[in-house]
Amino acid sequence: MTTQRGVSSDEARIRALLDEQAEATRAKHADRFRAVYAAELLTFDMAPPLRNAGADVALSRENLEGWFDTWQGPIGYETRDLNVTVGGDVAFSHDLIHISGTKVTGEHDGVWARRTLGLRRIDGAWKIVHEHTSVPFYMDGSYRAAVDLEP
Amino acid sequence: MTTQRGVSSDEARIRALLDEQAEATRAKHADRFRAVYAAELLTFDMAPPLRNAGADVALSRENLEGWFDTWQGPIGYETRDLNVTVGGDVAFSHDLIHISGTKVTGEHDGVWARRTLGLRRIDGAWKIVHEHTSVPFYMDGSYRAAVDLEP
Repeated sequence: MTTQRGVSSDEARIRALLDEQAEATRAKHADRFRAVYAAELLTFDMAPPLRNAGADVALSRENLEGWFDTWQGPIGYETRDLNVTVGGDVAFSHDLIHISGTKVTGEHDGVWARRTLGLRRIDGAWKIVHEHTSVPFYMDGSYRAAVDLEP
Repeated sequence: MTTQRGVSSDEARIRALLDEQAEATRAKHADRFRAVYAAELLTFDMAPPLRNAGADVALSRENLEGWFDTWQGPIGYETRDLNVTVGGDVAFSHDLIHISGTKVTGEHDGVWARRTLGLRRIDGAWKIVHEHTSVPFYMDGSYRAAVDLEP
């Protein structure tokens, strides 16, 4: 089933889910943010450890609100070049995300990262079951995270 | 369709594809390595830039053989905790990979990374269309790539 613009209805639903996630991030709303994920979530995050298994661990209220609380006011959250591939009740997506704002320390922060998502339709609703977010690192011997790249 | 062990035949095919990729890496065989990817490949790699679009760019013979040539002898390549989710002609997977060996400089190198793949069945054969490989970085102000983590 495709819409006038040639985007399948499932792709449109997944794009709406990611819009909701972006809105919840900007608003620093933990409950709305958590609602787009499945309980079986496994994440590869920008910070250690290598992985976090289970939404209770990866998206604990403590971690999420702790991160929200490092920002003064709303978080800037923009995405670019979203690509969604759907097959039946399974989908994956990739895009670039830009997170920016003013930290409670007064420092302005902004970073472009890469994001890959795995999604499943569970009880009729699309949910994120896997999230991988990262920046590359400079292989010039410095092992410095490349937080200064622009798309 | 499932096999005796409850793994679908498509999941078994994808696992075989990733075994072939691992073998090609260990053997530093560029043609075998490239054969598991689709031409439409988009990668988020451990080194900058943020992304590489098209197999000709992401897996250029120059880049691939250049990387192979930084290692003395075979490359150690092991994977752990592979999870594959299939829906029709679309799939995604995530696992941890360990790349190790002796660099031509004589230095021993070994790193655990996280890997997420997007796959499509194209003309009857599963191919990797998206690959995201990364390590996290320490958010302690050092911005140091976390190349010393163990699963």
